[in-house]
Amino acid sequence: MSPQSVLQAAECLAAVVPPTPVLMHEGLNQQLGYEIFFKCENLQRTGAFKFRGAYYALSQLSEKEKKAGVVAYSSGNHGRALACAARLLNISATIFMPEDAPAIKQHSARDEGAEVILYDRHRQSREALAAELVEARGLTLIPPFDHPNVIAGQGTAVLELFQQAGKLDAILVCVGGGGLLSGSILARNLMQPECEMFGVEPAAGNDVQQSVQKGEIVTIPVPDTIADGAQTRAASPLTFSIIQKNVKAILTITDDELIHQMRWFAEQMKLVVEPTGCLAAAALPQLTMKQGSRIGVLISGGNVDLASWMHWVGSVV
Amino acid sequence: MSPQSVLQAAECLAAVVPPTPVLMHEGLNQQLGYEIFFKCENLQRTGAFKFRGAYYALSQLSEKEKKAGVVAYSSGNHGRALACAARLLNISATIFMPEDAPAIKQHSARDEGAEVILYDRHRQSREALAAELVEARGLTLIPPFDHPNVIAGQGTAVLELFQQAGKLDAILVCVGGGGLLSGSILARNLMQPECEMFGVEPAAGNDVQQSVQKGEIVTIPVPDTIADGAQTRAASPLTFSIIQKNVKAILTITDDELIHQMRWFAEQMKLVVEPTGCLAAAALPQLTMKQGSRIGVLISGGNVDLASWMHWVGSVV
Repeated sequence: MSPQSVLQAAECLAAVVPPTPVLMHEGLNQQLGYEIFFKCENLQRTGAFKFRGAYYALSQLSEKEKKAGVVAYSSGNHGRALACAARLLNISATIFMPEDAPAIKQHSARDEGAEVILYDRHRQSREALAAELVEARGLTLIPPFDHPNVIAGQGTAVLELFQQAGKLDAILVCVGGGGLLSGSILARNLMQPECEMFGVEPAAGNDVQQSVQKGEIVTIPVPDTIADGAQTRAASPLTFSIIQKNVKAILTITDDELIHQMRWFAEQMKLVVEPTGCLAAAALPQLTMKQGSRIGVLISGGNVDLASWMHWVGSVV
Repeated sequence: MSPQSVLQAAECLAAVVPPTPVLMHEGLNQQLGYEIFFKCENLQRTGAFKFRGAYYALSQLSEKEKKAGVVAYSSGNHGRALACAARLLNISATIFMPEDAPAIKQHSARDEGAEVILYDRHRQSREALAAELVEARGLTLIPPFDHPNVIAGQGTAVLELFQQAGKLDAILVCVGGGGLLSGSILARNLMQPECEMFGVEPAAGNDVQQSVQKGEIVTIPVPDTIADGAQTRAASPLTFSIIQKNVKAILTITDDELIHQMRWFAEQMKLVVEPTGCLAAAALPQLTMKQGSRIGVLISGGNVDLASWMHWVGSVV
């Protein structure tokens, strides 16, 4: 994939979303000795960076494909983002969601005008269900990360961050399937090749860390973590090839660290951040950059069931 | 007071704080038929717009006054903002706080390097205590709203909003002592005289609404409301004279409406907003502007005890 694809995606997205804010926290800067730039994708349209990749991927479909419509399986941010992007582009969207997915997630996709089809995730394969629809209705499947245009779209968040923050010495980005990290790497290669890129995974779901160490894609059981956006079992060949060649290191974070980070964001920065969105910031103390380094931190999203969020945040003394 | 004073304040503040973000919510726009621009002063340095007025007022002191130091009484955002601004300007600051003020507020002022003096609010007068220090140590008292430079500083938030959002048909601003509203009016008079200005008070503390109706300053008992930033008993002659001549209307909001608004901000916009910061947004349904109007809403701050905030937000079904 060419780094230039991120520029093309950015041009396309400029018409529908303004840049998300970059915020700083003076106390944290003093404590760690860095200048830290938080890129707030929790304040992005649909509450997560996923809108970027979904919109760009849909915008690049042929007229025939747009007319036929798209399909995705996701109970999370990709589904919601795709539903919103499809509405804006006047494309019909079908989202497969497990029947035990939180009602609020079903509602938000339906509110965007998507057709939501529930399935029994213990007895039905979402891949098979989606493949049937692709076959029967001629729909195009939009995967959550394993797609060049999705990756290019996700990369625009870090492209913006460079434009907003100027020179950066390192950037921390969460990793699920690796779409955001590989897109971010493409943006880095284009803008500031000397900036170091770190991926951050849940400790319970460190498949990409293992994969980088082993030199090949490692598949793990569904990770047991509150970071629901990073519960992927493996990266894809495309995201892994970009990550493997370019990443400085993959760091890991426990759920307990995520919960403390969630509370810190609420108290100190007045932000609601979902568990996955806390991964990158929680890894800041693990960095061993020289004092005064300029560090970018990507807050990936803020979509979290408020009752769960309050339970976690309230559990910290 | 001249509207130009807001421009001078903005020039001074540009060196220490970037513009705060302006965010939008597509669903709310569709629901109400307006284009709504949320100015996020909860994301301001020290968590509230108060930093603007405090910093500008301190920066305008003479060298002799700066050397002698400043004093304020406040258990809230003004105290914290003043402590931070004083540290940045290398001025010593003394803040009187009631001894039953939340420990976190005492800590945050002390962390900024201020001297915090506790007093018994049932038995001691903070005005008298501060006056003693002014006399004994030659300190300058920085009031929370009744001061031209404080007002000019607060006005820079709406000045920025005009620069960021372009033409606006109306702006909603919360009212405690009226420093923010009168500063906002000066900015409006300078930038877009045709834009209508609305103040929003707690229903239990509508002294400014009563004052505007009566044509003179009305003083009320300390209002019983969760909007602790708007528990003032009366506007000052300076803020009232500006408000009286220029405000379109003063609207009021119940605590119950504030709590629903707090939850909406958390769920829909991923923002932690303190009760006072919810006043302006909660008044949106009361507006009767024509469809398509462009409305500015000032979110004044996000400093709230997280346990209280979660209690309120969790109480909404």
